[in-house]
Amino acid sequence: MTARIEESLARQVERMERARLARRTRFVLRDEHVTLSHGSGGKATHNLVEGLLVPAFANAALEAQEDAAVVATNGDRERLAFTTDSYVVSPLFFPGGDIGRLAVHGTVNDLAMVGAVPRYLSVGLILEEGLAIATLRRVVDSMRDAAITAGVQVVTGDTKVVPRGKADLLFINTSGVGVVRDGASLSARNVRPGDRVLLSGHVGDHGMAVMLAREALELEAEILSDTAPLHALVAALLAAAPHTRCLRDPTRGGVATSLNEIVQHAGVGIAVDEDRVPVRPAVRGACEILGLDPLHIANEGKLLAIVPPEEADLALAALRNHPLGAAAETIGEVLAEPEGMVVLRTGVGGSRVLDMLVGDPLPRIC
Amino acid sequence: MTARIEESLARQVERMERARLARRTRFVLRDEHVTLSHGSGGKATHNLVEGLLVPAFANAALEAQEDAAVVATNGDRERLAFTTDSYVVSPLFFPGGDIGRLAVHGTVNDLAMVGAVPRYLSVGLILEEGLAIATLRRVVDSMRDAAITAGVQVVTGDTKVVPRGKADLLFINTSGVGVVRDGASLSARNVRPGDRVLLSGHVGDHGMAVMLAREALELEAEILSDTAPLHALVAALLAAAPHTRCLRDPTRGGVATSLNEIVQHAGVGIAVDEDRVPVRPAVRGACEILGLDPLHIANEGKLLAIVPPEEADLALAALRNHPLGAAAETIGEVLAEPEGMVVLRTGVGGSRVLDMLVGDPLPRIC
Repeated sequence: MTARIEESLARQVERMERARLARRTRFVLRDEHVTLSHGSGGKATHNLVEGLLVPAFANAALEAQEDAAVVATNGDRERLAFTTDSYVVSPLFFPGGDIGRLAVHGTVNDLAMVGAVPRYLSVGLILEEGLAIATLRRVVDSMRDAAITAGVQVVTGDTKVVPRGKADLLFINTSGVGVVRDGASLSARNVRPGDRVLLSGHVGDHGMAVMLAREALELEAEILSDTAPLHALVAALLAAAPHTRCLRDPTRGGVATSLNEIVQHAGVGIAVDEDRVPVRPAVRGACEILGLDPLHIANEGKLLAIVPPEEADLALAALRNHPLGAAAETIGEVLAEPEGMVVLRTGVGGSRVLDMLVGDPLPRIC
Repeated sequence: MTARIEESLARQVERMERARLARRTRFVLRDEHVTLSHGSGGKATHNLVEGLLVPAFANAALEAQEDAAVVATNGDRERLAFTTDSYVVSPLFFPGGDIGRLAVHGTVNDLAMVGAVPRYLSVGLILEEGLAIATLRRVVDSMRDAAITAGVQVVTGDTKVVPRGKADLLFINTSGVGVVRDGASLSARNVRPGDRVLLSGHVGDHGMAVMLAREALELEAEILSDTAPLHALVAALLAAAPHTRCLRDPTRGGVATSLNEIVQHAGVGIAVDEDRVPVRPAVRGACEILGLDPLHIANEGKLLAIVPPEEADLALAALRNHPLGAAAETIGEVLAEPEGMVVLRTGVGGSRVLDMLVGDPLPRIC
């Protein structure tokens, strides 16, 4: 970084430093009641997870806090990836997708992010009394199509029904099991200063598509959810850049939150060049109207890859060569410091600290 | 069976036969809306599962319809068990247990029923805005204790929050992965005429405990949920009776529903001696007051075992030798016919067809 940027950051860094230390030393959950922010994927979610859930179930796989747990079976001869996600998106159907596709893609992607080949899914349905069977059938058909496309089998399931008014039509949990590729070791802990930060395409499409559908806001340009299965894109990337350090799909909380998770686990800093982050004009426009940062908006078909500098060009080419990565960009680099922070270099030569999502401006987008 | 019982059954058999054929030929889901019955675990649930869900995701592991799917990884050198369940029980805390213990035990037990050693759990939380953090902490602590006792690790999780009024405090999904014991092959398809039907203890405790807690009904004798992890009981049973055909934990829909599932998949009949089914007096009394059959009430710490006749005595002794099976009984036997039906031999020498649960007299007991 230039001396000028370093200077402009000094005060922010000082302010953040104490917060960071407090956060890393111990997450304390001070809230007395659950709020929507606890489901945002941002700061409040992290406080809940680190302050209550991780300490309760303390074990190495959980503490690694990757998108999926990597566990050994069969006397360590094989590594499995195991992950879970519940889906409560509202509305159930939105431009570019629906809760069923989302539930399959989200879990397939979490498995892909730790270098696993997705294999088996479970489906747990919580249905509200009165839900139209036709709606359920449409969602299930969508899940079936998504599973076939992603090459995974739904092998086990469960259905519960709660009385009218005790749920909101339909919630889905999908859990997934995959087999981790031999030699793959993807973790935020591998990230080193000098590494490059790649993003596979435009940000904010999913969150904005759901938001606009729910609020029935009319914009001139239609925004479609980017929901897609990323396992094939990951396979192409890892073939080209086998020393890829870490992958994340920036869902709830967006790119900003995922990058903050990485720097906190890796003990490094990351600088992102704002101008290099691909944002569709319609999404940028909607964000400006709503006062939101596209870097905080959820994606469901994008990935962040941290790659060593010597493989960065090959990695970018591999992403761009795949339909789901055609708009990929190198958006930043890993720095030794400021440790635990993400810095956004703005177009006009300034910079600011890019924090995790605070609050929940877009609840229930997945 | 005696000629007399056969005669008394003739008309019922004839009536059921057409229903059975229709059911086995094709499950048709005629309902237009989801009702509480679809969550009962009984007939309506089966229509939903067989008429909509299984056809959509058609594959061998799902179609086997055991309590957990058995799948191969690692080039078939290892078999994994994978299962999922969502928990929506109301109230969250009840005599003998709570939603957290239930969520751990239920998934541990589903893995145990296919002969697997439970290893890893996922936890997916759906929280209602406004839930007290103290309540969440109590549930999570209970899950932690149950996981430690059962020897499983919670390795991955997810938290979603929905606005006030869109859920009922707290729903939990647990999915689980286990390793199937070498040589274990537990499936309803193994069941043969002549096999014995063993039940590990008193029926109906869990469903009645939840029902009484929810409705605040006062009885003289307190009824406690039987929620418990069954993997150790299964290990003892399989050591004593290695040719055990099939195991089920009779949860939603009770013993009657589980036995009906078995006869339908195995193409056999089962005769149960009503007098041999252990029922606590308090549960029997509550059932009589409420007009319910204890064989339709959910259990969360009991198992049904179908064992070959030559291993039946050893199996019963092994169950009784374990604290969780102290009240075990041989309750019936497998017959060649009436195929697809469960017959209850009553104390006075009569008999009746014991069907799956119809409707949902006790919603949200798990």
